[in-house]
Amino acid sequence: MSLEGRFDDDAGVVRVGHDARQRYHDSRGYGYPLEGNEIALAPVEAAHLLYRGDLDTVVEKSTGDHLDFQAFVSREPGTDFGVRFLVYADLRERGFYLSPAREPWIDDSLLDAEHERIDFAVFPRGKGPGDGEIEYALRVIGERTDIPATELTNGVLAVVDEESEITYFDVNARDPSGETDTDLPSGVEAALLEDRVVLWEPPIDLYEDAFYGQPLEGREYERPTLQCSLLEAAYLAERGVIDLGFETVVERGREVEGERFDRRLRVYTELREREIVPKTGYKFGADFRTYANVESVSELSHSELLVRVHPDDHVFEPRDLALDVRLAHGVRKTMVFALVGESDGDREMVTGLTDDTDNSDASDATTDIEWWSLERLTP
Amino acid sequence: MSLEGRFDDDAGVVRVGHDARQRYHDSRGYGYPLEGNEIALAPVEAAHLLYRGDLDTVVEKSTGDHLDFQAFVSREPGTDFGVRFLVYADLRERGFYLSPAREPWIDDSLLDAEHERIDFAVFPRGKGPGDGEIEYALRVIGERTDIPATELTNGVLAVVDEESEITYFDVNARDPSGETDTDLPSGVEAALLEDRVVLWEPPIDLYEDAFYGQPLEGREYERPTLQCSLLEAAYLAERGVIDLGFETVVERGREVEGERFDRRLRVYTELREREIVPKTGYKFGADFRTYANVESVSELSHSELLVRVHPDDHVFEPRDLALDVRLAHGVRKTMVFALVGESDGDREMVTGLTDDTDNSDASDATTDIEWWSLERLTP
Repeated sequence: MSLEGRFDDDAGVVRVGHDARQRYHDSRGYGYPLEGNEIALAPVEAAHLLYRGDLDTVVEKSTGDHLDFQAFVSREPGTDFGVRFLVYADLRERGFYLSPAREPWIDDSLLDAEHERIDFAVFPRGKGPGDGEIEYALRVIGERTDIPATELTNGVLAVVDEESEITYFDVNARDPSGETDTDLPSGVEAALLEDRVVLWEPPIDLYEDAFYGQPLEGREYERPTLQCSLLEAAYLAERGVIDLGFETVVERGREVEGERFDRRLRVYTELREREIVPKTGYKFGADFRTYANVESVSELSHSELLVRVHPDDHVFEPRDLALDVRLAHGVRKTMVFALVGESDGDREMVTGLTDDTDNSDASDATTDIEWWSLERLTP
Repeated sequence: MSLEGRFDDDAGVVRVGHDARQRYHDSRGYGYPLEGNEIALAPVEAAHLLYRGDLDTVVEKSTGDHLDFQAFVSREPGTDFGVRFLVYADLRERGFYLSPAREPWIDDSLLDAEHERIDFAVFPRGKGPGDGEIEYALRVIGERTDIPATELTNGVLAVVDEESEITYFDVNARDPSGETDTDLPSGVEAALLEDRVVLWEPPIDLYEDAFYGQPLEGREYERPTLQCSLLEAAYLAERGVIDLGFETVVERGREVEGERFDRRLRVYTELREREIVPKTGYKFGADFRTYANVESVSELSHSELLVRVHPDDHVFEPRDLALDVRLAHGVRKTMVFALVGESDGDREMVTGLTDDTDNSDASDATTDIEWWSLERLTP
């Protein structure tokens, strides 16, 4: 025998009586308990029970109309109800119980400070709202909803595309580090040629051990001629490794790349300081690919990260995220976004970075770059 | 014994005498012949001979200075000389002869009307400037050089990244077509929900044979409920397949996507008219993935193309091209850009589309969409 629900418009829930508590809440994790055996369902929960035929109808208080699934969904005005229902149903289909990420469905203490952006608390398989554990803090958006970088939080982002397919991204604050230590020479002769720098006869170690530059074909060994990017050259110039002025190189960088050059140089420098080797990510459409531990270029391992640099007020389009993450996944690397603040003050203000994120060490090391990885997730 | 060259500043070439014609031109495809055994070399050719040690020095007429490779390259002011030299050397390394794409190095008749954008004529392996055949019409750019869509031409684009690695793209005008013919029903009940359209109980063929929409989980068969994108819905509404007004759907599309919606709808419609099935390319970061021949969704073949829609005055950044083409390659699809003109007049004016491109049929079928594929190439 199945049941009917009644809208409680003040509470914005659907109330179900009879043995609903045992049948739907206790055994299957829908809603939250009220007096006796009655429970309250969020509209998305009620829609799912209607959809499955567990509820026959929901009754409109005002009109007395009996709504079936179709009528209920068409009536439900809440923006994004559609995408939230699709994700709710998909995760139920995958064997998870989940609840709206707020009281009284769950205990707020289960979520971190950023939970106002979380739509659902997804419980570990086999567990429910009462078990005090959360597997995924889930945010749901449509493919056309832009995401300000300042809204990235640890958790899972579910994106529903225009044809209602769902992609899940695992979002994590990162603190990248490596073990590439290098001794740098000094006073190496270098020439600035257009948008690159040529080192005519540097010590081979600069390439072979420290992985700076790219040898000119056929000149790898006896007298290597290294071509360096302007980023590499700026970093080397600042440390007196090459005989070019730091400002000279940076000015050329700004001429050819604008302010983007400064942002990328800060990320390049920070990665080198963290003993990670950044090389161009151009072939992957990224700013850098990185090597955490370079012993020698001749025994180079697979690069681990693809890094894309953005100002920390950047606004992501989900489609661009899908493109970057998909490509990184395809080449067995992790996509990392480096968000560069204009200044500490701004950063604190716009990102609200809190010390309880994994990022706090990073933010000590460099007070104005945040690192976030996005990876494909199959719940 | 090796030789020395002399700058001829008026002609912008380097002249080499003695037996240069036989040694460098006739046997190895450098330069063009002058009187007797003398030849004229483009700076990039002279630089390569210096680089290989085939020329000892080049003499400055004004100063009498003898320049070696390093001095020659540092002296050479021409913008992009660096990137053109790198590509010239790379193709020589790969066993090709190549010449500047102009008289008197080659006969202009070998190049099509668009050759003013071509830097090098690359000859088939084993052939040279005199053999009247061109393997690649090559354009060379640095990774920071933007490419207006209006400058795309059939040929090969060589992009030199900031660390001097080279990527080659094969660029071709396309005329996509398929063989998916479908009978469409009419008057199907549909509801506009936020940014998608739900068909509550359409004939299953609409999904199974024509591949419109996406069934709601668990409703695939007995009474399929199809969710359609706004693009699919607009196309179906215009043909009376669903009981929603075309304008209603298009207005919603513009609300959620702006003018981009109209551009994408024109491409969606054109693809359907060409009997190709477009579905969302979201997971690949593209507008569409396409199926040329859908018999039934249950026996769906691999999709062939990824299509990205741009206005025809779009300006490409090489890095974005690298990202799209790399991703498409990784999933065994071909990246195609659909360039949508604002109007015929504009299109004719800005693209200078000529009837001798493969595009001419396409431009008859639809007077304002150009299709261009970019694919990775290893010369």
